[in-house]
Amino acid sequence: MREALQLAAQGQGAAEPNPMVGCVLVQAGQVIGRGYHAKYGGPHAERAALADSSGQPTRGATAYVTLEPCCHHGKTPPCTDALIAAEVARVVIAQQDPFGLVDGGGIDLLKQAGITVEVGLLEAEAKRLNAPYRKLLATGRPWVIAKWAMTLDGKLATHTGHSRWISNELARERVHRLRGRMDAIVVGSRTAQLDDPQLTVRPPGMRTPLRVVVDGEATLSPTSQLVQTAHQTPVLVAVKKGADAQRCRVLSDAGCEVFVCGGEGHAARLDALLAELGKRRLTNILVEGGAGLLGEFLKLGQIDEVYAFVAPKLIGGSGAPSPIGGTGWADMSEALQLTDVTIEPLGDNVLMHGLAGGNFTKQ
Amino acid sequence: MREALQLAAQGQGAAEPNPMVGCVLVQAGQVIGRGYHAKYGGPHAERAALADSSGQPTRGATAYVTLEPCCHHGKTPPCTDALIAAEVARVVIAQQDPFGLVDGGGIDLLKQAGITVEVGLLEAEAKRLNAPYRKLLATGRPWVIAKWAMTLDGKLATHTGHSRWISNELARERVHRLRGRMDAIVVGSRTAQLDDPQLTVRPPGMRTPLRVVVDGEATLSPTSQLVQTAHQTPVLVAVKKGADAQRCRVLSDAGCEVFVCGGEGHAARLDALLAELGKRRLTNILVEGGAGLLGEFLKLGQIDEVYAFVAPKLIGGSGAPSPIGGTGWADMSEALQLTDVTIEPLGDNVLMHGLAGGNFTKQ
Repeated sequence: MREALQLAAQGQGAAEPNPMVGCVLVQAGQVIGRGYHAKYGGPHAERAALADSSGQPTRGATAYVTLEPCCHHGKTPPCTDALIAAEVARVVIAQQDPFGLVDGGGIDLLKQAGITVEVGLLEAEAKRLNAPYRKLLATGRPWVIAKWAMTLDGKLATHTGHSRWISNELARERVHRLRGRMDAIVVGSRTAQLDDPQLTVRPPGMRTPLRVVVDGEATLSPTSQLVQTAHQTPVLVAVKKGADAQRCRVLSDAGCEVFVCGGEGHAARLDALLAELGKRRLTNILVEGGAGLLGEFLKLGQIDEVYAFVAPKLIGGSGAPSPIGGTGWADMSEALQLTDVTIEPLGDNVLMHGLAGGNFTKQ
Repeated sequence: MREALQLAAQGQGAAEPNPMVGCVLVQAGQVIGRGYHAKYGGPHAERAALADSSGQPTRGATAYVTLEPCCHHGKTPPCTDALIAAEVARVVIAQQDPFGLVDGGGIDLLKQAGITVEVGLLEAEAKRLNAPYRKLLATGRPWVIAKWAMTLDGKLATHTGHSRWISNELARERVHRLRGRMDAIVVGSRTAQLDDPQLTVRPPGMRTPLRVVVDGEATLSPTSQLVQTAHQTPVLVAVKKGADAQRCRVLSDAGCEVFVCGGEGHAARLDALLAELGKRRLTNILVEGGAGLLGEFLKLGQIDEVYAFVAPKLIGGSGAPSPIGGTGWADMSEALQLTDVTIEPLGDNVLMHGLAGGNFTKQ
């Protein structure tokens, strides 16, 4: 199952909005086939593993699969059919698929066909791997990854807003690799104004993320790089009801999609935006700041994962922004404690990565 | 010489205010003696290495020593005498000793005795090792190590000032080990008030640092842990001219030393304090915050080394202090770039350590 999980992870960035799935076929103690769901719309892991075992008898084999096999006709025929046809004797499943059209149905079909089914082997690891998929299904909101680069004295920028460059080239390359598997990149209006970023993936990655600016008053400049390239790479400007109609029209005319977030107050509007992105089946979104926007995500309990790059530079300044603003918590006991923390040196920078405690097991 | 440098480093925390020195004696390609300056007032490295070589002939040997041998009577007789008496043929020296009573005099004496002298092998490493000693000699100010523990979103505390605990136990142990080789621990008045720290070393280390509070207005509470323990472990309260005489008297009566910093303005007064600590031959001081005080050290160009602990917690808040306050720099190009950066995971915390670019080679 551990190998099946490793196989599954190879689909990251290409499988979404489908879950990542891996499958290993074992016959008399020997692995006879390996497969994973390599691309959305492509063959599922079970069929890939069966194809990989070509020529070898699968009758009586055991299939280790990281997610319950599907039993419905989606973009491909049901995997339960393939396993039953292959006459495997036993299917070991890490986790049941919460997807409405499966949700235990695959397990039942296999059992009805006389196959022994076991569920729960390395379930926690499997759930963590597909936490974004599970969150989207359970809550209708995408998985939110917060990313920032800060100085060793905790600053996103100097007190004048200058931030080029805080992190080193290795770190910036790492960010582009991360962006390349995202469905959207989200920034606040002030960051868009101060940094005038492109928010593209260089070199291009597995997918082209939608560029989202949270910009209540529609203040995004028509001469910004984002707007100027909106015809090449989509830009969504999330405004609030009552934002200046003229400015919204200019942005639309320039090729941006203007989305009006319903609801009263920052939190409600941000949640409306997340719901919209979820409706479009965006699985992973990267929030790159600024501090104010990240502060709203924190308060909303909508930071699921963190990539924080730290550079050994000091700039000082009580007026310089630190990564997460807003009101923040009052007591250390309220702090969001990250789990599964990894520490990755990138030259003289360091990347600290972690998951928001518990979010990946909640669903 | 590399081994001699490693030997030298073993004296760290015990040798100061003397320099750390190591010595390796080599006879016909074999190491016959090793020594280092293990304790202030104790034998110097050269004499320790000669003692270690007991019984073996030293005539014609080469001595590798990380610092020019002394030629004056201090707490011990001159090392030049010992090397000449041992009839070594050659002395290889990493760096000349800038100390006024030596400063080339040791080299001259050895040469006059017919010994071959070479200077400069691994000089940069040797200078870095004794950067605090060199700074104190050159500028009359101690070497300043800035230390802080912050959340991954760059906060020293929540917006209410709450900070217990940000870092994990491994990190806190590491801080106590660091404190145990310091000559002083320095905090600002607001940190003393908010955290009510003891600033002691637990368990005790090699030396007992003087506890210093930078407290212009002498507002340190007589009921604080610092004042309450001033009879056991010295406390120096650095006030400005004109600080309330009554409050100063209460602090003095409670066992604190009240030192009046001359000069107009924060920067001048802080420099006066550093000059006073230097006059007392304090070699290494640890500045533990808060943000305002560290901001002054940064602007004064008086941060020489940094120990920053980062914990995977998020608390948010634009009003929460980040490690270095004050006015700070306006442009990233002005940032203090740390060099010789090391990244040390401590459980799920990380310690990033570095030197202020160039400070250790300036002198």
